[in-house]
Amino acid sequence: MKQHALNQLRVKSIGIDTYRENIIYMRSDCYICISEGFTALTRVVVVHKEKTIVATLNVVTSNILSHEEAGLSEIAMRNLAVKDGDIISISHLKPISSLHDVRAKVYGEKLNDAALTRIIADVTNGLYSDLELSAFITASAGDNLDIDEITGLTKAMIDSGTKMRWNTKIVLDKHCVGGLPGNRTTPIVVAIVAAAGLTIPKTSSRAITSPAGTADAMETVTSVDLTPEKIREVVAKEGGCIVWGGSVNLSPADDILIAIEKALDLDSKGQMIASVLSKKKAAGSTHVVIDIPVGKTAKVRTEKEALRLEQYFKEVGKSINLTVDVLITNGSQPVGRGIGPTLEAMDFLAVLRNSKNAPQDLKQRALTIAGALLELSGKVKKGEGETNAKQILESGKAWDKFYKICIAQGGYKEPRLAKYKKEIVSHAKGTVTEIDNRKLAKIAKLAGAPKSPSAGVYFCSPLGTNVVKGQTLFIIYSDAKGELDYAFDYLNSINDVIKLQ
Amino acid sequence: MKQHALNQLRVKSIGIDTYRENIIYMRSDCYICISEGFTALTRVVVVHKEKTIVATLNVVTSNILSHEEAGLSEIAMRNLAVKDGDIISISHLKPISSLHDVRAKVYGEKLNDAALTRIIADVTNGLYSDLELSAFITASAGDNLDIDEITGLTKAMIDSGTKMRWNTKIVLDKHCVGGLPGNRTTPIVVAIVAAAGLTIPKTSSRAITSPAGTADAMETVTSVDLTPEKIREVVAKEGGCIVWGGSVNLSPADDILIAIEKALDLDSKGQMIASVLSKKKAAGSTHVVIDIPVGKTAKVRTEKEALRLEQYFKEVGKSINLTVDVLITNGSQPVGRGIGPTLEAMDFLAVLRNSKNAPQDLKQRALTIAGALLELSGKVKKGEGETNAKQILESGKAWDKFYKICIAQGGYKEPRLAKYKKEIVSHAKGTVTEIDNRKLAKIAKLAGAPKSPSAGVYFCSPLGTNVVKGQTLFIIYSDAKGELDYAFDYLNSINDVIKLQ
Repeated sequence: MKQHALNQLRVKSIGIDTYRENIIYMRSDCYICISEGFTALTRVVVVHKEKTIVATLNVVTSNILSHEEAGLSEIAMRNLAVKDGDIISISHLKPISSLHDVRAKVYGEKLNDAALTRIIADVTNGLYSDLELSAFITASAGDNLDIDEITGLTKAMIDSGTKMRWNTKIVLDKHCVGGLPGNRTTPIVVAIVAAAGLTIPKTSSRAITSPAGTADAMETVTSVDLTPEKIREVVAKEGGCIVWGGSVNLSPADDILIAIEKALDLDSKGQMIASVLSKKKAAGSTHVVIDIPVGKTAKVRTEKEALRLEQYFKEVGKSINLTVDVLITNGSQPVGRGIGPTLEAMDFLAVLRNSKNAPQDLKQRALTIAGALLELSGKVKKGEGETNAKQILESGKAWDKFYKICIAQGGYKEPRLAKYKKEIVSHAKGTVTEIDNRKLAKIAKLAGAPKSPSAGVYFCSPLGTNVVKGQTLFIIYSDAKGELDYAFDYLNSINDVIKLQ
Repeated sequence: MKQHALNQLRVKSIGIDTYRENIIYMRSDCYICISEGFTALTRVVVVHKEKTIVATLNVVTSNILSHEEAGLSEIAMRNLAVKDGDIISISHLKPISSLHDVRAKVYGEKLNDAALTRIIADVTNGLYSDLELSAFITASAGDNLDIDEITGLTKAMIDSGTKMRWNTKIVLDKHCVGGLPGNRTTPIVVAIVAAAGLTIPKTSSRAITSPAGTADAMETVTSVDLTPEKIREVVAKEGGCIVWGGSVNLSPADDILIAIEKALDLDSKGQMIASVLSKKKAAGSTHVVIDIPVGKTAKVRTEKEALRLEQYFKEVGKSINLTVDVLITNGSQPVGRGIGPTLEAMDFLAVLRNSKNAPQDLKQRALTIAGALLELSGKVKKGEGETNAKQILESGKAWDKFYKICIAQGGYKEPRLAKYKKEIVSHAKGTVTEIDNRKLAKIAKLAGAPKSPSAGVYFCSPLGTNVVKGQTLFIIYSDAKGELDYAFDYLNSINDVIKLQ
């Protein structure tokens, strides 16, 4: 990009947090705005030494900046690695050619591999505004990407970031297609598989639209934000790890896209498959088990949809040389009792410790998945995986391995409950016949999950429970009084979350 | 919406221009952020007296605000009608139910009338974030809306704003489907039709993705930002007007959507038809002529596409009780010589004044459209419209009427040329065989049009011109040296805008 040597201003830190978006604040009457014709929302290139970012301009008409100063949002200061007083150059942003591809897709054309590579490269380099990211997400939402596009997107995402390599022939991984509150099997599965002597370097995501991701839940007991070197060390020592994938720069475009998907509350089958498989492949996995829970209020609602997803996962897997096994499971109600990072951690800890009151449904799901992985690895014969997994869990070997993994990742701590809670009781007697997972998840989110790790919902009444009037159906936890009230307001504004007959 | 009585802060004007988006700046450690769990980008409701806005939160970590203060972006201060020191209340935004409809559309469902009414009402009320607007625009871009959805959208847009009524049975209007630089027939057509004694209260738009809209060009000679009362006065006196539609609150959602379409550089057939027809209907028109220029680099590229558009315009028109006539015209090159507000105004002024060097193509197009309107009104027999229009123009009656309309709108002034210019000359001799309208438009925009009204391109070499080496093909005008350089840089980075043989 051409730079005008004189387009320089001095950075002033003004401490405005715009979340992910780079914003630059410039006086409307500074010589650069006047000579370059910059106005509010112009997209500009900002350079400091070897670093370059693209930022959106917010024009300032007051005296919070002098004529020689430019303000930068906190993320922009970090991305550009500047401090108060540094000199930056500001210039026009040339038209971004991959936006042409996005527009073609919006107008109904198909994206080929080259176009997807261009788009993902520009997204990774931070060239897209939030508006433009929103357009790309919307154009690829739902069923809007076909199998070729999903494969192209997956490959582009793998190539956009770090690729990890391991010294074993078989590297295992698992993934659960979300939408089932509390389904936190990963820590249990990793502990069992690693205890069996296999390699399972697990990178997990934070919540997208759910109240908690595995990384969020794990973070309540140990560190999950590890460098690739540290991860290598943990896996070399323990055979497994449970870390946040974002910190190792696997498929970095994915995290940018996920943030927008979350803000829009949109799901995309194609983005989801590409997100999952690109991270597995980039993490160096060779064999992966995908768990697809099916239920009326789960992310995948019908068996038919699950079978189509299975086919997509397997086809895309094959084209990137990844062996994929798919488990289609029952997703008709929350798994475990907790919804939200801390409450979910308490559930998986109880299973790992073989506590008497451990949620049996969570235990059973974890054993099924761990069994499938043991079989997929070839270490255990077909049909014997689950029995093997159960033996490892109930003997205490899994807990032992889990604890060692936490210590290797940086230490172990017990999670703590939230400050405020509100018990929701039944107004009648009857049998629980229906549970609305989506509404329960929404209540947990309104209560503050996952940003407040201790916030969420503790669920006391699985399907089939006989309840009496006044019996607790679930408990809302929150660390902020306002959020607790707000979750409760929402609950009062909707129909029954739990139906009795 | 429930408000927490104590969630109050004092407004501090911090003079940040975020364009259209309401932004509220609050300290991360203010008691509201803490008690409500607000973080960067939380969408909040802000109330002052009877006014309510929805704003996006930017968290402040510096001392530009005290614990009792909140900053508001300039547009938010205007929308909320507050000044420094006023007390505002801040609370959670309840989930917006029409976003559910937008998501359903993104996932492939059809939008019914009720859903479109909900969406347009919420857009009009400013409840959508820019990200959400982008998702709605993307979901309805290109051919993504069918005829029922376009009709529903049109009706919803009509109902969202002011509706004008006139005391005559026949109220005429015209619209040109954009993409043809310099095609500024409207002022000429309105002058002719009003001079014929008919009623034509014309509301025009500003540029969406083009270098100038009719309102932008008219603004270089008179005021276009008139109140409905003033418009009524002008039309009562002169039979016609040429004003900016945005100032009369016709179809207000449309302006919000257009701003996002512009930022994304996306076109939507459905949004376009709904935008055009809703504004005509809301402006009280009964008979409308739509001009669709067709050309390889015009907005509509093929005759087939134009015929489909014609059918859509007529069908939607019928369902809202509006008589629509469509003209499909030649759009293979710019009309007139100027591209950009001032340069286009100079062209239509030359035609109206019957100047010797007036662009004949612009004159001819204006006569065709004016003729079609005279016939559609029933005042002139079929086949005689154009001859009639020509007589009115060449007799000087049209100029006379145009001048009176300008005076009635607030006065007449001659437009002025830009400070800087650069002549682009031919490097060879030959005949002009191809002109890239899109690239010419882009050069005009990079030079500053329409924000700098005098910026643009003056075009000297229509199709078929025999040029010699060194002859001027076009001239770039700009009011900012940086923008002139930038337009020139772009020109040097692309292939021939004008092809010779």
